[in-house]
Amino acid sequence: MKLLKEKIMNDGKVLSDTVLKVDSFLNHQIDPLLMKEIGEEFANRFTDEVITKILTIESSGIAPSTMLGLTIGAPVVFARKRKSLTLSGNLYSSKVHSFTKNETNEISVSKDFLSPDDNVLIVDDFLANGEAVKGLLDIAQQSGATVVGVGIVIEKGFQQGGQILREQGIRVESLANIKSLANGQIEFFDY
Amino acid sequence: MKLLKEKIMNDGKVLSDTVLKVDSFLNHQIDPLLMKEIGEEFANRFTDEVITKILTIESSGIAPSTMLGLTIGAPVVFARKRKSLTLSGNLYSSKVHSFTKNETNEISVSKDFLSPDDNVLIVDDFLANGEAVKGLLDIAQQSGATVVGVGIVIEKGFQQGGQILREQGIRVESLANIKSLANGQIEFFDY
Repeated sequence: MKLLKEKIMNDGKVLSDTVLKVDSFLNHQIDPLLMKEIGEEFANRFTDEVITKILTIESSGIAPSTMLGLTIGAPVVFARKRKSLTLSGNLYSSKVHSFTKNETNEISVSKDFLSPDDNVLIVDDFLANGEAVKGLLDIAQQSGATVVGVGIVIEKGFQQGGQILREQGIRVESLANIKSLANGQIEFFDY
Repeated sequence: MKLLKEKIMNDGKVLSDTVLKVDSFLNHQIDPLLMKEIGEEFANRFTDEVITKILTIESSGIAPSTMLGLTIGAPVVFARKRKSLTLSGNLYSSKVHSFTKNETNEISVSKDFLSPDDNVLIVDDFLANGEAVKGLLDIAQQSGATVVGVGIVIEKGFQQGGQILREQGIRVESLANIKSLANGQIEFFDY
């Protein structure tokens, strides 16, 4: 996705060989017009699939997922990272380790919002080691829903998450796939 | 806002005299079309103001804020509830107590994304005791930005947050204002 790659090149900050900071348009400040175009691009990539529900995880997955949901007319469900008092019992849960934050969270989705009738597209902002997507896949599988694929805004293709998922036969569509962050330079895979 | 009130009447669940659960369209599952209409209604309410930045808090404020941002062409900044390793230093911070979750979080916004030149609209999903909005106001004030007002999806008008803010001269626009949740019945203020 050309616009996204340009935004990453212009506004992304390489903090190390593995960490790319895109806080100015995706993870902390949000560029709503870019989110709309990302939502439309996800819709294009999965136009051959009937999607009844978009499953993401708080917080940075919410904006692109909501724009996709608006485009295709499907609701979004975001997994919560901690239980709140008004969201107790009746949950699908899974554990997710975040290497960036160096912590393990239990993520949860209410059983009210995923069912065996659902065709689910999983969406997230980043794919690195694949921990968050694995947790969301686990939750979708617990519900009996069908997962039609995974839509990722930025894949770190030099880490193993995408490869592991694709080897399991899961369709993964990344709008930007980073080949390397070495020497402070952002390099994309060409496709 | 008629559509929102209908949604609350049809899909909201009264858990107690003070707790309204709207997990099916706002706080856990998100209705993207409703979010778009909410964003447009906020834009209408504040059409007399120049807004350069929308300030909200993760997670449930993100979807309505992003739709507002799309409508008026302004970026969204969401305050984070915990520090991550890629968001350290250079922060405005404030403490927010959540009565629903019975915990106090430090919320933070990077100094990169708020400045004295900004005209900020604060947006959140709920206004009850006003703790989250007070934290966001504190952060906006630390940055030197001008706060043009507060946009709330659902105000619990029977709690004191809205009154306290309005008595301070802050413009608060709520798209639905609940008068009472007593006896399991949802009653709105008429305006």
